Amino acid sequence: MSLIVQKFGGTSVGSLERIGQVADKVARFRAEGHDVVVVVSAMSGETNRLIGLAHELQERPVPRELDVLISTGEQVTTALLSMALNERGVKAKSYNGSQVRILTDDSHTKARIREIDNEKLHAGLEAGYVLVVAGFQGVDEHGNITTLGRGGSDTTAVALAAALKADECQIYTDVDGVYTTDPRMVDGARRLDRITFEEMLEMASMGSKVLQIRAVEFAGKYQVPLRVLHSFQEGPGTLITLEDVNQMETPTIAGIAFNRDEAKLTVLGVPDMPGIAHKILGPIGEANIEVDVILQNTGEDNHTDFTFTVSRTDLPRAEEVLRRVAAQIEAREVRSDPRIAKVSVVGVGMRSHAGVASQMFAALAEVGINIQMITTSEIKISVIIEEKFLELAVRALHSSFGLEKEPNDESVA
Amino acid sequence: MSLIVQKFGGTSVGSLERIGQVADKVARFRAEGHDVVVVVSAMSGETNRLIGLAHELQERPVPRELDVLISTGEQVTTALLSMALNERGVKAKSYNGSQVRILTDDSHTKARIREIDNEKLHAGLEAGYVLVVAGFQGVDEHGNITTLGRGGSDTTAVALAAALKADECQIYTDVDGVYTTDPRMVDGARRLDRITFEEMLEMASMGSKVLQIRAVEFAGKYQVPLRVLHSFQEGPGTLITLEDVNQMETPTIAGIAFNRDEAKLTVLGVPDMPGIAHKILGPIGEANIEVDVILQNTGEDNHTDFTFTVSRTDLPRAEEVLRRVAAQIEAREVRSDPRIAKVSVVGVGMRSHAGVASQMFAALAEVGINIQMITTSEIKISVIIEEKFLELAVRALHSSFGLEKEPNDESVA
Repeated sequence: MSLIVQKFGGTSVGSLERIGQVADKVARFRAEGHDVVVVVSAMSGETNRLIGLAHELQERPVPRELDVLISTGEQVTTALLSMALNERGVKAKSYNGSQVRILTDDSHTKARIREIDNEKLHAGLEAGYVLVVAGFQGVDEHGNITTLGRGGSDTTAVALAAALKADECQIYTDVDGVYTTDPRMVDGARRLDRITFEEMLEMASMGSKVLQIRAVEFAGKYQVPLRVLHSFQEGPGTLITLEDVNQMETPTIAGIAFNRDEAKLTVLGVPDMPGIAHKILGPIGEANIEVDVILQNTGEDNHTDFTFTVSRTDLPRAEEVLRRVAAQIEAREVRSDPRIAKVSVVGVGMRSHAGVASQMFAALAEVGINIQMITTSEIKISVIIEEKFLELAVRALHSSFGLEKEPNDESVA
Repeated sequence: MSLIVQKFGGTSVGSLERIGQVADKVARFRAEGHDVVVVVSAMSGETNRLIGLAHELQERPVPRELDVLISTGEQVTTALLSMALNERGVKAKSYNGSQVRILTDDSHTKARIREIDNEKLHAGLEAGYVLVVAGFQGVDEHGNITTLGRGGSDTTAVALAAALKADECQIYTDVDGVYTTDPRMVDGARRLDRITFEEMLEMASMGSKVLQIRAVEFAGKYQVPLRVLHSFQEGPGTLITLEDVNQMETPTIAGIAFNRDEAKLTVLGVPDMPGIAHKILGPIGEANIEVDVILQNTGEDNHTDFTFTVSRTDLPRAEEVLRRVAAQIEAREVRSDPRIAKVSVVGVGMRSHAGVASQMFAALAEVGINIQMITTSEIKISVIIEEKFLELAVRALHSSFGLEKEPNDESVA
């Protein structure tokens, strides 16, 4: 018998029928003898409905009251799911953030969890109850209701799993696991049985938005085994773990991530002097524009070229800021290109395996794709290419690294 | 400067527009320098919507979870009203039952208030906030959410006023006060400036359903001055007070109450022996039928007639029970009459003024109304008459006791 924390998002509890299906699933786990803590979000649409009401009253609703308002969404779901479980003969009890108690800081609408009191939860589990906990919410030290921000229910689930030392934290979603790459793009894309936290973070930040990055970080920090599963289909999903040193067959590469939501900005003929990067990126940061890849080429004649990428929607604003900066620093020219994409090869295995980069570049060259920028991290190599080559690049890399094969097959890398 | 507790029901906060109007009203009191605690119900329809969801999942929803579910309704209103107040430049903060904390017993869906912690409320008032408190809800000693049952928001308001020693508890409704009788029946019906708790209880139980009886009892017990006012019309309303001994001009009679929802049952030829009343009414009580007026005439030949009234909807069931009982006790006959009405004269003044009863009977005789039954209490005299004479009776009594005149005028009684 093990202790499992299960999290169901807004779509999974979006109607009474779906709440019934979730209850069926939880009841099956209970019947297998597991202790179960369920974390739920508000029924889909409810949070937005409540926020809509608030905005009709105030352009910028008082954050404290906004939290009081929207936290009711999850509370409603906890009560309904508890009823559905009791109706199925499964003893169940709801808990809101204040009842658990999930202590947070006082940053309303984006609070951080400080501490979870697990005394009540342990008592509830020992008394044989399934505990249904409201995700996304907590209380500050003065008893004010706080919320954790969008996607906070994942964080609640992971934090509860950590506090209760659960055997597994299961996040139910609308996909059946984490894939080697987007299955809509590559036919041979394969569901991974396992992936490490670091790989998951790199995959997630590239647009494989299965899990909130914050929850993955949290799970990694507290070593909570995390599993991504489909809410209404059976299957083992993908287990996100610490690097499993016992698994000799760990493939070098976990997957191919990509992001087509980027745009490139280049400042040409920048005087090459200390502090120039700050002079360029400072005003961009002040305008609340996030920068992803940054590249500075060595220049000639004491001049250099400075290139970086931003989210495509930020391009017009970034360009405006940059032209002003360019004039100030007497740069020669500003160029922008919205038609780029980023493709990344991700895998903890590349730490110990040489040749991943050269294999990646070779595979792209073979299909005639020109690489515009390269950045690397310890477990990831990313390239910026022309957007029109994206699908071609992802398929070529997926095939080159043999990702369509099970890891027990001999790896190409 | 005084401390006022104001309660707004579901209709008064039934839309964002109405919440705005309530905020305007509260803001005006605040501008006059008063400290204000506002108690709100769920927006009209919301509680029923939530109960509907619960009943789709369970025929008899788990009471604990039903409370978790429906308590969100009031919480939503507290947040929205707080926002509307802040938008008007009035510092305001919401509190749910657990935050206040309103400690109740653990009778879910019909909990009783045990204690109110007023430390947080005092601190909030001292910091210059309008406090917006969720009505109808509390927590038990284990932190479980409880609700007080329908109309519980009135009770919350009175309990808060008692705990805070408020100068006045104002209940905002859809009527502008308590009247000498139903204004739809008597043109001269007059709004009372004052009424005592006891009179209000007698008037309320007769169908003048302005306030929850429980809240009035509570206010009487803790000596909280209670005022009934109209939510969206200006006016002084009616103040419900302890008997004001200083007011020499207290009129004898406060008002004429009536109830047309009664039916009469008579058992004729009952053997007159000890325990016979119990033999007749015992089975009626077991069938969960409430009895109002009871009358036993002295009989002849060791036989008596036994008459009582029940709610008209209970008549068929009561008759069925009674025919069975009549056979057992060998009574001669059972008769029923659904076409009756009860008319009552209510007033604390009748304690010290003789002649109220005789004036009442004279007034009815003058217009040719036959009295079928009479019952009296310390501050009330009720008669049962044929239903078709109800309007005539109420008008005759209203006029006979001079209720259309202000109490400062010379009283007829």
